[in-house]
Amino acid sequence: MSGRTTVVIQGVESPGEVPGIEALETNAEFRCVGDLNALRRALPGAEVLLGWNFAAADVIHAFDRADRLRWIQWGGAGVDAALFPALVESEVTLTNVRGVFDQAMAEYTLGMILAFAKDFRGTDTLQRERKWLHRPTEPVAGTKALVVGVGSIGRAIARTLRAVGIEVEGVGRTARDGDAEFGRVRGNEDLNRELGSADWVVLVTPLTGQTRGLFDAARFAAMKSTARFFNLGRGALVDEPALIEALETGVIAGAGLDVFSEEPLPAGSPLWGMENVVVSPHMSGDFRGHEEAMASIFLDNFRRYRAGEPLVNVVDKRLGFVPG
Amino acid sequence: MSGRTTVVIQGVESPGEVPGIEALETNAEFRCVGDLNALRRALPGAEVLLGWNFAAADVIHAFDRADRLRWIQWGGAGVDAALFPALVESEVTLTNVRGVFDQAMAEYTLGMILAFAKDFRGTDTLQRERKWLHRPTEPVAGTKALVVGVGSIGRAIARTLRAVGIEVEGVGRTARDGDAEFGRVRGNEDLNRELGSADWVVLVTPLTGQTRGLFDAARFAAMKSTARFFNLGRGALVDEPALIEALETGVIAGAGLDVFSEEPLPAGSPLWGMENVVVSPHMSGDFRGHEEAMASIFLDNFRRYRAGEPLVNVVDKRLGFVPG
Repeated sequence: MSGRTTVVIQGVESPGEVPGIEALETNAEFRCVGDLNALRRALPGAEVLLGWNFAAADVIHAFDRADRLRWIQWGGAGVDAALFPALVESEVTLTNVRGVFDQAMAEYTLGMILAFAKDFRGTDTLQRERKWLHRPTEPVAGTKALVVGVGSIGRAIARTLRAVGIEVEGVGRTARDGDAEFGRVRGNEDLNRELGSADWVVLVTPLTGQTRGLFDAARFAAMKSTARFFNLGRGALVDEPALIEALETGVIAGAGLDVFSEEPLPAGSPLWGMENVVVSPHMSGDFRGHEEAMASIFLDNFRRYRAGEPLVNVVDKRLGFVPG
Repeated sequence: MSGRTTVVIQGVESPGEVPGIEALETNAEFRCVGDLNALRRALPGAEVLLGWNFAAADVIHAFDRADRLRWIQWGGAGVDAALFPALVESEVTLTNVRGVFDQAMAEYTLGMILAFAKDFRGTDTLQRERKWLHRPTEPVAGTKALVVGVGSIGRAIARTLRAVGIEVEGVGRTARDGDAEFGRVRGNEDLNRELGSADWVVLVTPLTGQTRGLFDAARFAAMKSTARFFNLGRGALVDEPALIEALETGVIAGAGLDVFSEEPLPAGSPLWGMENVVVSPHMSGDFRGHEEAMASIFLDNFRRYRAGEPLVNVVDKRLGFVPG
């Protein structure tokens, strides 16, 4: 490819905010945009869109301006906000940053499990009151986790939980045997049965037409009353009012939530005030250094794009994720 | 052995509080004691002392009444409170419950490390204020931990931290190569150098004449200013005022403390109020079910005692621990 490629970078004020991007300067012309109006002005004529700090919902409202767009590099693992018909049906290639967040999310999940098992919140509360109150802790080794979503994030979580002696089962879109990480992967049709024996339920499946609202009142009812539920995937995977009711009425014992049906979580949500719920602001995957890891995927893909080679992390837009 | 063995059980109101002890009833006569005076009254004529819920400091003040005592089963892993001259120099065999707390303490340590790395306390604080504030987290894989104390607890901690990708070095009483868990064990003479490269320092060594006050101002000065310090061993291993100063002045970044020079930690201690310190009430090893595990060691040892067989977990009273 000769000539410079026009790249719109969403969510930065200057290209220098993307680590290492100066290496592309001879081959690329950058247009940095900060909001929807700027995105709409910048898209005409651009071949590449790099979603860096993602106002993901903006893309649907600017896509009609994408007259020459050939490739979107999505700045996240979950591409649900890109799965609108005009983009799905277009020739535009969609890539994500699969893999970048895996280890951080696995560590975050294990941390939340240990925090519940060892009652770190109780310890914090007692410390603020300067109260010395011994409590026995829950052992973690020998407990059972169910990971819903068997992509690269779910696999990293499974590996990490197993490393400390937690038994892990995986639930995916379709049941299958002989999976390298999970052995037997259960299908969604077995989900309720699997929920009945899990101490920890970890939701990391992509948000698609098949998974929207996957966890409803019936799912929570199928769980053990001592179980804790973790959502690190997407808020819309869960019927949030049903979750709140399950937590308030003791149907399940607790939850660690990093994603919500509306983000930022509105100040009026009862979730903020619940003793058995940890609310964190969609940060489980974002470790110090994740920008470099995200950039390196884009830089590699940009070189491939210019050389006419196949890109990595190409999303199957009908499935809604990068096939394993 | 014929006839019944008189067993004093310290810290219970009835023998039934010790799970499974009813199996010994034909061979044992139990005397349950709750305080020092009761212990002093019960010891004469008794052959065995089972320290169940340990008011450990009482033993030194009752030992002069131990006219027929042959064996003390200590209800903890650290036997420092039993290492007074009259007991050390006596023929009384001292056994501990080595192994019971290993896995729980390893999980607790990893949980505290993850809580610091993922800033769970910050998340809790923000949740109480209903504030949505994204922060990047610290990766844990690839960081470095130094475990000071290479007995069964230190080994379990090393195994667990390594399982999530933390690099682990061990420091013991004497340097040696070819250790099955640690490879090369560093000696205390290398401690300062090792402290300079550790992100996490975990103190679990037994309290003996050699280790009392092991962590003083110079040790903290040798640590990285970003490092966190964890003490799950004994408070007296640490110069507590020096630790407080190191934490207040940024010499080290934080601490997770489960043991203190005085327990319960006095309400006036500045440690309670420090944002970068987690205070927990000497509970890291006490998982639900630990009583059964402790009892099974005693029941096994009691059978051995009656049969004239060697006991398990015999403490070397000169060293101050059960030799590996």
